Amino acid sequence: MPNLKNDRFLRALLRQPVDVTPVWMMRQAGRYLPEYRASRAQAGSFLDLCQNPDLACEVTLQPLERFPLDAAILFSDILTIPDAMGLGLYFSEGEGPRFRNPVRDERGIKALGVPDPEQDLGYVMDAVRTIRRELDGRVPLIGFSGSPWTLATYMVEGAGSKNFSQIKGMMFDRPDLIEQLLGTVADAVTAYLNGQIAAGAQALMIFDTWGGVLSPGNYRKYSLAYMDRILKGLHRESEGQRVPVILFTKGGGDWLGDMARTGCDGLGVDWTTDLSDARRRVQDRVALQGNLDPCVLYASPKRIREEVQRVLASYGHGPGHVFNLGHGIHPGVNPDHALALVEAVHELSPQYHSATNLE
Amino acid sequence: MPNLKNDRFLRALLRQPVDVTPVWMMRQAGRYLPEYRASRAQAGSFLDLCQNPDLACEVTLQPLERFPLDAAILFSDILTIPDAMGLGLYFSEGEGPRFRNPVRDERGIKALGVPDPEQDLGYVMDAVRTIRRELDGRVPLIGFSGSPWTLATYMVEGAGSKNFSQIKGMMFDRPDLIEQLLGTVADAVTAYLNGQIAAGAQALMIFDTWGGVLSPGNYRKYSLAYMDRILKGLHRESEGQRVPVILFTKGGGDWLGDMARTGCDGLGVDWTTDLSDARRRVQDRVALQGNLDPCVLYASPKRIREEVQRVLASYGHGPGHVFNLGHGIHPGVNPDHALALVEAVHELSPQYHSATNLE
Repeated sequence: MPNLKNDRFLRALLRQPVDVTPVWMMRQAGRYLPEYRASRAQAGSFLDLCQNPDLACEVTLQPLERFPLDAAILFSDILTIPDAMGLGLYFSEGEGPRFRNPVRDERGIKALGVPDPEQDLGYVMDAVRTIRRELDGRVPLIGFSGSPWTLATYMVEGAGSKNFSQIKGMMFDRPDLIEQLLGTVADAVTAYLNGQIAAGAQALMIFDTWGGVLSPGNYRKYSLAYMDRILKGLHRESEGQRVPVILFTKGGGDWLGDMARTGCDGLGVDWTTDLSDARRRVQDRVALQGNLDPCVLYASPKRIREEVQRVLASYGHGPGHVFNLGHGIHPGVNPDHALALVEAVHELSPQYHSATNLE
Repeated sequence: MPNLKNDRFLRALLRQPVDVTPVWMMRQAGRYLPEYRASRAQAGSFLDLCQNPDLACEVTLQPLERFPLDAAILFSDILTIPDAMGLGLYFSEGEGPRFRNPVRDERGIKALGVPDPEQDLGYVMDAVRTIRRELDGRVPLIGFSGSPWTLATYMVEGAGSKNFSQIKGMMFDRPDLIEQLLGTVADAVTAYLNGQIAAGAQALMIFDTWGGVLSPGNYRKYSLAYMDRILKGLHRESEGQRVPVILFTKGGGDWLGDMARTGCDGLGVDWTTDLSDARRRVQDRVALQGNLDPCVLYASPKRIREEVQRVLASYGHGPGHVFNLGHGIHPGVNPDHALALVEAVHELSPQYHSATNLE
């Protein structure tokens, strides 16, 4: 493997000194880019795009051609695992993901197996290998998965949900069943992420999109505990380097302290918590990633720059900050505005990393 | 006006001693009740139901016939004010509320006027008067409104939203316009709520459904500040009694301390914050209302009782707790389960109000 030419992202996650704050954007390969829409049209459906390693590589690299980003993230979907479990993932236009065979009862849960990454999700592993080769050491590659709780919500609801009635009904009435389901999914996520590490992923992120719909007690019990279990099962070293892991619970600002004690390296933070508060809550135990409201990208480049400055100042001096949005970039954003963000981070952040300010 | 036979709800909001914890449920008059569905079918559309004071009264009282609730809440919609401003509210089946004429620019915002409650929203005032008469002092009647920020999101987006791109784009790019819009809406809400008080509402609740999508700074600036302005403009005394006001920002658990300093009497709390934490954050300055996850009502009556006990214990001893769900009751809930909740609150709560435990 070629040497990494830009390791700011990995260094920041390990809370090591950097020259400028590294930046990437969740969903940076996506519909807001015309070149993405062209690749997507070529592929056919969104799933066809995910399942074609060459095209997945192509769209992964597209934002790097436009913007001086400090990391690439595997182009894929969080629902590949349940699909490989036989639930039959499909996307109905304008309605988001759906499963043909949602899991609704004890029989369905007991029947679930743990997919083998190379055998059952080989297209993802191939995509990781292809992207690593094509990246040629420019920036590190982030692999990812959904959290067990988040995957389980889709698996039980059969689609996105507003109230999470099905899975919560099961959680309140049959906690034993939910725990069995989450255990199986956690094992599958562990194998899947270890497969991505073996294939070349240099950092990992676990997206807990729906952990924030739980009460604090149930969050710890049904979401955080299973992310913790995954962390304990991951091979955190590869190619002689630590593979840092970021946890991100959308709406989980209150629980950052608990999350920081899992042994993860970094935490994603959405914009509803200020990074200054987040930093106090984690007491500099872990790095923080975030947290610009993606809607700022609808404003003018001048306003974007002001908001970038505000986020940088909120984190403050010293290492351990990865700049990002607090959620995926929206489809209608002007790519020039994304460029304004990335440039502003690099231009405005050196003052927070000057030698006299290093801890 | 007849004397109030059950004033637990008002006493709890004023942090005065009570025998048992009062309980009501957000959206307690709603689709989960077959008798509501019958009235709705009789009325025609949802809006027809809201605009018919006799039918609005009928559905307001329905849950009180079934359950020993400690408060009634006016049956209406939060979007009556923008509708009276000329935005043309309608409901497309399965898609939620929409406006024919959303407000998108400076011209639209400058053209907005403040509706006169009796002239432009007389059907709501008539409903309040009718319900007060028919309640005959059984329990107090709660009036309500959406918060300025929440109303503004619908007015600008023209419908419910996932990302709030339109209003946030405007907020980041043209804060002056948003402030003008929020100022007009705040004046309209103040007049509307004062109208409800004059018509007989004995307590008020301001629903800030979408304050939780803002950053902490923008929440204070664009949502909380305008609720504060309303509080300062309300006639808080009527019929010789204080009219307590409850603020509820969904997802606003982090900001309860700030909210408690506005001069409101109570704060709604959703289930993502434990009441024990909430109580610490507000330092017993205000009463707290909440906070059972409405999905608990999908579980068995036995489990519902356990969760009620957990919520009561989380608030702990002493006055100042109004039991409620953390969000509106879901349409698919079995009414017998709602009864189990109400009965459990009354049966399990006396221990938290025993004389030796009064503060």
